[in-house]
Amino acid sequence: MSTALLTDLYELTMAESYRRHGKTGRAVFSISVRTMPAERNFFVCCGLDSLIQYLTSFTFSDEDIFYLRSLDKFTDEFLTWLSTFRFNGDVIAVPEGRIVFESEPLVRIEGSLPEVQILETIALNLIHHQTVIASKAARMIAVSKGRGLVDFGLRRAHGPEGGTYAARATYIAGFLGTSNVEAGRLYGIPVSGTMAHSYVLVFSSEEEAFRSYIKSFPIDPVLLIDTYDTMTGVATAARLATEGLPVSAVRIDSGDIASIVPGVRQYLDEHDQNQIRIIATGGVDEYDIDRWLKAGVPIDSFGVGTKLLTSSDIPFLDMTYKLVEYEGIPKSKTSTGKVTIPGKREIYRHYDTSGMMDHDEVVVETQGNLGEKLLETVILNGRPTGVDNSIQRSRGRFEEDFNRLPNGMKGVIQNRYRVIIG
Amino acid sequence: MSTALLTDLYELTMAESYRRHGKTGRAVFSISVRTMPAERNFFVCCGLDSLIQYLTSFTFSDEDIFYLRSLDKFTDEFLTWLSTFRFNGDVIAVPEGRIVFESEPLVRIEGSLPEVQILETIALNLIHHQTVIASKAARMIAVSKGRGLVDFGLRRAHGPEGGTYAARATYIAGFLGTSNVEAGRLYGIPVSGTMAHSYVLVFSSEEEAFRSYIKSFPIDPVLLIDTYDTMTGVATAARLATEGLPVSAVRIDSGDIASIVPGVRQYLDEHDQNQIRIIATGGVDEYDIDRWLKAGVPIDSFGVGTKLLTSSDIPFLDMTYKLVEYEGIPKSKTSTGKVTIPGKREIYRHYDTSGMMDHDEVVVETQGNLGEKLLETVILNGRPTGVDNSIQRSRGRFEEDFNRLPNGMKGVIQNRYRVIIG
Repeated sequence: MSTALLTDLYELTMAESYRRHGKTGRAVFSISVRTMPAERNFFVCCGLDSLIQYLTSFTFSDEDIFYLRSLDKFTDEFLTWLSTFRFNGDVIAVPEGRIVFESEPLVRIEGSLPEVQILETIALNLIHHQTVIASKAARMIAVSKGRGLVDFGLRRAHGPEGGTYAARATYIAGFLGTSNVEAGRLYGIPVSGTMAHSYVLVFSSEEEAFRSYIKSFPIDPVLLIDTYDTMTGVATAARLATEGLPVSAVRIDSGDIASIVPGVRQYLDEHDQNQIRIIATGGVDEYDIDRWLKAGVPIDSFGVGTKLLTSSDIPFLDMTYKLVEYEGIPKSKTSTGKVTIPGKREIYRHYDTSGMMDHDEVVVETQGNLGEKLLETVILNGRPTGVDNSIQRSRGRFEEDFNRLPNGMKGVIQNRYRVIIG
Repeated sequence: MSTALLTDLYELTMAESYRRHGKTGRAVFSISVRTMPAERNFFVCCGLDSLIQYLTSFTFSDEDIFYLRSLDKFTDEFLTWLSTFRFNGDVIAVPEGRIVFESEPLVRIEGSLPEVQILETIALNLIHHQTVIASKAARMIAVSKGRGLVDFGLRRAHGPEGGTYAARATYIAGFLGTSNVEAGRLYGIPVSGTMAHSYVLVFSSEEEAFRSYIKSFPIDPVLLIDTYDTMTGVATAARLATEGLPVSAVRIDSGDIASIVPGVRQYLDEHDQNQIRIIATGGVDEYDIDRWLKAGVPIDSFGVGTKLLTSSDIPFLDMTYKLVEYEGIPKSKTSTGKVTIPGKREIYRHYDTSGMMDHDEVVVETQGNLGEKLLETVILNGRPTGVDNSIQRSRGRFEEDFNRLPNGMKGVIQNRYRVIIG
């Protein structure tokens, strides 16, 4: 798939018109989320590494130019300019993994107006999607009280690439691993997997299926026990473990988890198999995890799929890419309900005496150092500055911020962090 | 991005174990949606062309095998098998663009058990995502009473590839075009676009911005009139049109569309500009379109973005890839709430005397011809049979089916089509 054409047509028509009318001065666009949804207490920055890779390799190929010419909209002069286009501007951004809030500038892109206009669509696409997923994943981490979470969602993600970017986002937000093998290869995320119901169905019995699987994969095998009847399944698993076969965990993918799991745990314990862990999967989200753990349901880890990789309750954020300054003059629109905050802004974070996050200030750049500064220059004159947005570093950043996030922000209940717009 | 690794790890571990235990007989997997959500009355099949392309080019590269070997999970024998793997099975599917319902087999994949098992994740990913989007798009078409709809959603789609597949899905379901230039190039979809608020902001006045844009793009220009004040914006647009400048349409992206648009229409008409059309954008979904058009709000066309490309009310369907037969024996699981229907099934469609769709029957294959048969063989022994899933043919199929869909199914109100499971 060609990349430079991954844009809305109007970015290109505007760029042509800007050039024709001499509007090539320095422009500043800012990405932020207008409002915090009721179902979120914070966001986790994600997608910057994708954006940096995109911007530093962004060119229009001959094939792209050929297609654009066929539209009969653009002048030869403009197409020639596009054919030699490289991004030479600056990107100032909150590094990946950091916790942020509504109204805060997550990414600022600065350069000549046409060059930064044509990046709007792809910049929003990459930052929006990955931030949506990382923020959803972090909610699950927040309620899981240290239980392991693994991403199982590729099959219902919106496209294979979307599922793979999303796996990276969930790992940054504290997931232990993913089922997505390509995400494992690309990003070094630990990959894991168990067995499907189809595996159990093709053997003459559930027991034969379990024995066959353990023979093939004797290291930490996880047995799926609900293909026919869960209590029969756990009895079979316990019997094999009693024989000395390795059984690391049992997985339950259906039924009323809250009522089934205690019986499965009790059965395992009564048969001296208290080392066998219980993994719950099947439409799990943070509301389930929170409810089950608060009720003391003895689940050891969770496989989370569809509702995570579609961020099903909040599949999009009100995230925008807005012109905030042109030729040094702050700009804002006054459209009903969509008024924008003009000017280049910094985010300063303040901590309380115990080191926990207390509030943020979003103020114009010239007001000096008022706390921890969140924005960093990640591209200068088209070149990456070396800010480390690797998946491991980003995961580390999330963990640090998460440890300083007040506990009240970590539940499924709505709770608002103080953001002061200066 | 490598493709053969776009799978859940367990597909590969199961495949290895199947081979080790001689489970290489012929298996039949079926993709269907278990339940119809309250917010949908029908689905539109989509994604089959992507799946066919994937299956006919599916190989594990040396790099893929290298990565899999590094996991220390697989035997050399299995990795050698993977390295020469080609899909040699059959795919029987409902062609793209057709209208279908819950419990109906949309795609059936048949072949040796390991070869069809490893396709589960990618087959579901491609069919699920594109069917979700096409089905959402069709709801918007259903309530739009012939007004034009254009996809503007790339910026908030889940990844660039997801946005591009989605643009194709919306075009199949009757959209006029897309803002996504890459989708235009790849699929021949008409591309369109207007201007953003940033364009208006960088000129010294809204009027200067409008004049500059018309000078650059005098063919059917669309002016965005709500950057500052919508009624001032429309007055400026009307004045330019009165001067003889081309103004094709005005776009309104904010505020209470239902209360603003009538005034804008009235202003244009009173100033002899009744040929100028009104385009509404900004968070539009089918509920808005239905409500506005029923209230007589004089909108001529809609630009639809975020809620379409994330299918925000139903971002996923309960779509599964289930083993229904192994070595000629029907298979089903009995997991609580997830019981599957065993055996190879056909869909037969019945029409009433006026040619409208009346009901479908989902029955085992051997029961003979009971109506219009929806499933067709699209891949036989690994080779495409030539069933035309081009975007234009698929769009034609949707239009034909949509014309035969009872009107009661076309609103936003829940209405159930009769599907008989035989």
